[in-house]
Amino acid sequence: MLGDNKTAAVMVIGDEILSGRTQDSNSHYIARFLGSLGIDLKEVRVVSDDEAEIVAGLNALRARYDMVFTTGGIGPTHDDITADAVAKAFDVGIGYHPEAYALLEARYPLGEFNEMRKRMARIPHGAALIKNSASVAPGFHIGNVFVMAGVPAVMRAMLEAIAPGLPRGVEVTSVTVSVDVPEGRIAAGLSDVQKANAGVSIGSYPFYQESGPGTQLVTRGRDAGAVEVAALAIEAMLKELGVASTRL
Amino acid sequence: MLGDNKTAAVMVIGDEILSGRTQDSNSHYIARFLGSLGIDLKEVRVVSDDEAEIVAGLNALRARYDMVFTTGGIGPTHDDITADAVAKAFDVGIGYHPEAYALLEARYPLGEFNEMRKRMARIPHGAALIKNSASVAPGFHIGNVFVMAGVPAVMRAMLEAIAPGLPRGVEVTSVTVSVDVPEGRIAAGLSDVQKANAGVSIGSYPFYQESGPGTQLVTRGRDAGAVEVAALAIEAMLKELGVASTRL
Repeated sequence: MLGDNKTAAVMVIGDEILSGRTQDSNSHYIARFLGSLGIDLKEVRVVSDDEAEIVAGLNALRARYDMVFTTGGIGPTHDDITADAVAKAFDVGIGYHPEAYALLEARYPLGEFNEMRKRMARIPHGAALIKNSASVAPGFHIGNVFVMAGVPAVMRAMLEAIAPGLPRGVEVTSVTVSVDVPEGRIAAGLSDVQKANAGVSIGSYPFYQESGPGTQLVTRGRDAGAVEVAALAIEAMLKELGVASTRL
Repeated sequence: MLGDNKTAAVMVIGDEILSGRTQDSNSHYIARFLGSLGIDLKEVRVVSDDEAEIVAGLNALRARYDMVFTTGGIGPTHDDITADAVAKAFDVGIGYHPEAYALLEARYPLGEFNEMRKRMARIPHGAALIKNSASVAPGFHIGNVFVMAGVPAVMRAMLEAIAPGLPRGVEVTSVTVSVDVPEGRIAAGLSDVQKANAGVSIGSYPFYQESGPGTQLVTRGRDAGAVEVAALAIEAMLKELGVASTRL
């Protein structure tokens, strides 16, 4: 119901996320980033450091959504296999990208640009580099896929570098109304408000605090006026039920 | 390379995750939980509150992995559609589960067990309840799919309830060796250690601190002896390179 904004998916690549060693924070950051551009994040997948998994996941997501953002697996070590997997997914060759190679070569003292570090200059044929302020090692962009680092600071710098070239949609706005009653108490009224405001997405998110259960009611949509109308309808419904509410 | 442990996937259901409103913490918790049981988490997907998306994602994951754990969408409000979507995925009917209905009815004061709250007793035919210590509203288990709440405290209690019935594998053990040099400096040696220890998974995870870049080298596997041998080989390789290391 959010209309014809562009769509996106995130693919997080990394055994360390699936093993529970590391908690992924990149997908949450990307979700907020895309939201601010008016791009609708529709799906996130976390896959292992396995070429077949990366290829299959990437091909499924890039066929389905306008854009795919990947994180992880573009460093110098043996477990960094994302670039090769992306080349395979696109059925293109891969080799040293002259500019990436030159950037990396200039970065290291003489003799320290070793074979493993050269791996970071391996870029699928036809891809454009994603240069960034945090790391000399670039990400890359091929077709509708943006391949980024897994280290959060580097990933964020790559997103900044990508942003100017992304299509912008109408940013989704939201209003959050908070109540100190459990959601079951107000669910019927909320359902009625949703039915009467079909162009707005209404979510109900229970929470628990020491003083008892509460609920956040969130209206979301691209039409800020309609979002406000729905929030007002929720507040009127709550008032009728004798439930105090506050806007967050 | 982790052998024949059982496999699992997590499906997080919720617009609030994709919009960036909420950062999912459940999948990380489940990853650690499954690791402690010797069950290999192979994939995580986050999908929206959309029936077709839930059905398609669930059918893909349950066909592929031994177990699927879902979180979110089993409350009383209009946006809680997981139970219906799961019934559709399994092509079974859905209705009030007598025991769930009785539990919920007893929970509420007279007159407060309203139509929306009754939605929480709607369980796909053939499913078994997941009763838990945190909430009267149950999750449920059908086929190889475990359907849990999205509220973290409730989800965790449901996992505890599920645990005794899960198949246990050999827990993966790991050793982490930390160095204060960038991963590119040691990548070639690390690659050699990986080749010589094919039964162990070796990961390299760069980090940044004020004093400069560092790397954590993690050996993982079900054979604790082999994991230790690989860690010792990494430490010997580092010593030969003149790189100090510490075990975490």
